[in-house]
Amino acid sequence: MTTHELLVKARDARRSVAALSSEKKRGVLYDVANAVLRHENDILNANETDIRNASQTIAPVMIDRLKLDHARLNAICGDIIKVADLDDPCGKVLENRILKSGIKLRRVSVPIGVIAMIYESRPNVTCDAATLCFKSGNVCVLRGGKEAIETNKAIVSAIRNAIADNGVDPNAVCLVEDITRQSATELMEAAGYVDLLIPRGSAGLINACVEHAKVPCIQTGAGICHVYIDKCADIKKALDIIENAKTSRPSVCNAAEVCLVHKDIADIFLPLLYDRLCVKREENGLVPVELRLDEKAAAIIDGKVAGENDFDTEFLNYILAVKVVDSVEQAVEHISNHSTFHSECIVTEDEKAAAYFTANVDSAAVYVNASTRFTDGGEFGFGCEIGISTQKMHARGPMGLDALTSYKYILTGNGQTR
Amino acid sequence: MTTHELLVKARDARRSVAALSSEKKRGVLYDVANAVLRHENDILNANETDIRNASQTIAPVMIDRLKLDHARLNAICGDIIKVADLDDPCGKVLENRILKSGIKLRRVSVPIGVIAMIYESRPNVTCDAATLCFKSGNVCVLRGGKEAIETNKAIVSAIRNAIADNGVDPNAVCLVEDITRQSATELMEAAGYVDLLIPRGSAGLINACVEHAKVPCIQTGAGICHVYIDKCADIKKALDIIENAKTSRPSVCNAAEVCLVHKDIADIFLPLLYDRLCVKREENGLVPVELRLDEKAAAIIDGKVAGENDFDTEFLNYILAVKVVDSVEQAVEHISNHSTFHSECIVTEDEKAAAYFTANVDSAAVYVNASTRFTDGGEFGFGCEIGISTQKMHARGPMGLDALTSYKYILTGNGQTR
Repeated sequence: MTTHELLVKARDARRSVAALSSEKKRGVLYDVANAVLRHENDILNANETDIRNASQTIAPVMIDRLKLDHARLNAICGDIIKVADLDDPCGKVLENRILKSGIKLRRVSVPIGVIAMIYESRPNVTCDAATLCFKSGNVCVLRGGKEAIETNKAIVSAIRNAIADNGVDPNAVCLVEDITRQSATELMEAAGYVDLLIPRGSAGLINACVEHAKVPCIQTGAGICHVYIDKCADIKKALDIIENAKTSRPSVCNAAEVCLVHKDIADIFLPLLYDRLCVKREENGLVPVELRLDEKAAAIIDGKVAGENDFDTEFLNYILAVKVVDSVEQAVEHISNHSTFHSECIVTEDEKAAAYFTANVDSAAVYVNASTRFTDGGEFGFGCEIGISTQKMHARGPMGLDALTSYKYILTGNGQTR
Repeated sequence: MTTHELLVKARDARRSVAALSSEKKRGVLYDVANAVLRHENDILNANETDIRNASQTIAPVMIDRLKLDHARLNAICGDIIKVADLDDPCGKVLENRILKSGIKLRRVSVPIGVIAMIYESRPNVTCDAATLCFKSGNVCVLRGGKEAIETNKAIVSAIRNAIADNGVDPNAVCLVEDITRQSATELMEAAGYVDLLIPRGSAGLINACVEHAKVPCIQTGAGICHVYIDKCADIKKALDIIENAKTSRPSVCNAAEVCLVHKDIADIFLPLLYDRLCVKREENGLVPVELRLDEKAAAIIDGKVAGENDFDTEFLNYILAVKVVDSVEQAVEHISNHSTFHSECIVTEDEKAAAYFTANVDSAAVYVNASTRFTDGGEFGFGCEIGISTQKMHARGPMGLDALTSYKYILTGNGQTR
């Protein structure tokens, strides 16, 4: 089947999927979770094939992202059930009022239509996206990475069978099997077929989509996240938060890349930071963090001097750029010039500093005294997420069910003319 | 000043404009309205220059769109005051809950940042856009049509002076004076400077923006709007609504282009339609409507037979395509295949037919027994509108203040790590 033929089928499925009742959608998703579990062997075998094929060409860290096992598959199915049990995001009356003309206006949430996703290796994205789209009454067209194609085929086959067994058009969930540049381009340019394109993966992939898409597209992902240690910081919280934000999973977008430290606390804090992230981690057999220091920080502790780009790089690794700032205002200024506006944190006991920071930092998620790692659909109560938006249009931050809806106005009159 | 220099100034103004208090924004907008009135002579003189320059090259209907006079300028200032008096759309707490981690989550509405508009001749768009953007804490970069440049310069000069007199950065409202293809392209590609692009004008302009934009863009405008006369229609309401929807202002996007008629009522209704739109209007010295009829309608009344494209054309003129359908389901099917999903109407006294129509027609505004002409920011209570979105992402239908906001998550913890 060509990508165009698949897009036609997806578009044709749109109205019937949008019309499903809440109860029906919930029931189908339970069956989808069961079907994925029941097909565990097929899925894990397909995954082994993918890993065998990929092991020559991709890095070990990517192999880990690709790998499924019993526990991971169970967790994925748990997320399907979590989403199944959430409230239906469609059909909500968002406004209800009478216009000056006497016409009754209701604004009601509705599905978006056909949502295309272009993503890379992690097969859990296949399940998350299919589940969130189905629950929100949308058809999805999934194009995962070449290295995960067998796994994705096995997963989507299980999902589609479960949907069809419920008497619903299985084209509610479509998989592009032709993993070429051509098929990606077709999705980006499918005006009239694709209502929303969500790329998820490397900065290169996302930029290509933003640059070339002729359909509405949401920019997701890249995170140069900052933790600012204010002069009124609680030192223990500061050390816990920065270690967690930097090291608990350095390869993800909500990990911190930059630590800003107020000059009044730098002499005390920086040696403790060095001890915690470098010395102690090494002693405990953990990967130590490489610090890249601006001039003022380098005058206080050991570490590599930061290069020109170190405050504009998403390291996705055990590397942290460190800079001393004069004030909370300067911290905000630095963030406003260097951030990707994903997640930032202030550690402080001073409510005024916290209020200034949260009012003036213009990022999707702004934290006071908590790790940036919480920017996540699961943590935000969305079950899972279809991506983390770093733009301001439509949806911002972790995108759950509500982010996959639009609305329409239903206006009831009695013959009014204008 | 180059367009790039102007974009730098706009971006630099963003934070100070976003930080203005509700009271300050309201006060500035009152002064803006006064300034526009006070500069009436300058503005009307500039407008005369534009009209003199344009009269050789553009059609009379476009001249009318371009023309300002005392009454129109007063109406524009009235809209500024209406918007000034609306609630501030920013700083609203949209969600407030505690996550399982104990972190307090608040979702708060915020400005989008820099909004660029590319539009054509009507100078009221300049005031509407500047007012809506300022009230919502956004900076706007306006690029109107070449034929309105002197008018726009005079209007924006008055606006900027009023803003500056209030101690606010006048770059809150920026006007691109270099009306070239190059400046339009620069706005479409200004990633990092423009947070949202709104084109408003001809289908050609909008398609060019959607096709070439590398910044988030909202598709506005084009309206192939349908009025469906159900078998249970009240005939008087049906005739009033279709005449109003077609003829009250045929050049605008919410005017009806197509009338669908249920077969059971066609024999009665179509002759009355012909009488009302063709005969009576001519008798009364009004422009008669040219009907373009499908085969079944042509068997009942006189009129031109519809050509291949007549059900897919935004006539923007006194032309109406007419088709007989077998059922409300077939009407919905036709709309789903031919509409631009702007506004559609069902005329019926049957609640079941109305419910089917409103549930299954997937347009921004779906009417029961009221003219499609009500799809308008003023009628919807938004004061005015920055455009009418025909896509589903971010905003749909008339875009007022809320459509010019995004949100951010503010998360307050007590040292939480993940």
